[in-house]
Amino acid sequence: MAHTRDPKHNAALLMRVKRIAGQIEAIERALSSGSECADVLHQVAGVRGAVNGLMDEIFEAHLKDHVARPGLSDEERSRGAEELATVLRRYAK
Amino acid sequence: MAHTRDPKHNAALLMRVKRIAGQIEAIERALSSGSECADVLHQVAGVRGAVNGLMDEIFEAHLKDHVARPGLSDEERSRGAEELATVLRRYAK
Amino acid sequence: MAHTRDPKHNAALLMRVKRIAGQIEAIERALSSGSECADVLHQVAGVRGAVNGLMDEIFEAHLKDHVARPGLSDEERSRGAEELATVLRRYAK
Amino acid sequence: MAHTRDPKHNAALLMRVKRIAGQIEAIERALSSGSECADVLHQVAGVRGAVNGLMDEIFEAHLKDHVARPGLSDEERSRGAEELATVLRRYAK
Repeated sequence: MAHTRDPKHNAALLMRVKRIAGQIEAIERALSSGSECADVLHQVAGVRGAVNGLMDEIFEAHLKDHVARPGLSDEERSRGAEELATVLRRYAK
Repeated sequence: MAHTRDPKHNAALLMRVKRIAGQIEAIERALSSGSECADVLHQVAGVRGAVNGLMDEIFEAHLKDHVARPGLSDEERSRGAEELATVLRRYAK
Repeated sequence: MAHTRDPKHNAALLMRVKRIAGQIEAIERALSSGSECADVLHQVAGVRGAVNGLMDEIFEAHLKDHVARPGLSDEERSRGAEELATVLRRYAK
Repeated sequence: MAHTRDPKHNAALLMRVKRIAGQIEAIERALSSGSECADVLHQVAGVRGAVNGLMDEIFEAHLKDHVARPGLSDEERSRGAEELATVLRRYAK
């Protein structure tokens, strides 16, 4: 079972995403009301940090649930590892 | 005039932010519908790239409008530079 | 066998590290000879890209050799995954 | 005068670069002696942090010396800002 279907973990991730959605709405309001761009810059940098945190949480959960978890087949582990490697390569920092 | 109050630039930024808001909503739907976490991971990495792009655009506009633009006072330039430096330090990658 | 002890992979990693060492020496020379800082900035950004690439390569090799590889014990997999998670958390961007 | 030719600042930057060179040598030794790759991963992540710090320091100095500094011509400011924007675009994270 994909860890994002694990209700408890899923709810925590959803909460995080909704918070980020709220931060994005705040940036929309700031731009619409002509806020100082230095303030908007800080808001965007804050979203960046939140998105990085979300990414690391999902990355780590995938690592533990789809690669390391006892009982997975060799084929499932290999696929799980390749999925992470693909994300690493495509979105290398 | 702060570039975020320049209607044309502001509209372009707002468009970018609305696109990111749409990407975040897609992640919410993916989590709510129990998508594979590898897919969610790619979506989050996509948002990260979009937020980085938005940040660079605002950073560059601030650099040109509040530090380099002809006619600014030394005091305005110094403040504009310090605002950028603060963002760099606080959200250093 | 830890992949960093796998002669072939190790040699490839060492080659990458030696290249980065050469880039760092070039920055030292540039600073010592009073080069334009815009040039130094590009050189440093180049090193950053090379170090990120090195990090992704070792991260991916660790993922495949110490977490996903067939024949590892559950305890070895869990430790390998935790080592990666620790790096993620400590050096999260 | 490019700030990297400012002796005091230059010496501080050189010190930072020499420290990074030392960290790279330590990674070479670790790989040559077959250290555990989790340890090598932490060392590489440490270099990444140091390089990011060096980059931010040079970026900030360039911003203040070649864009914001009183007495620069509009043409010098514009060039200084464009140099920073180019680095941002090329090495966007």
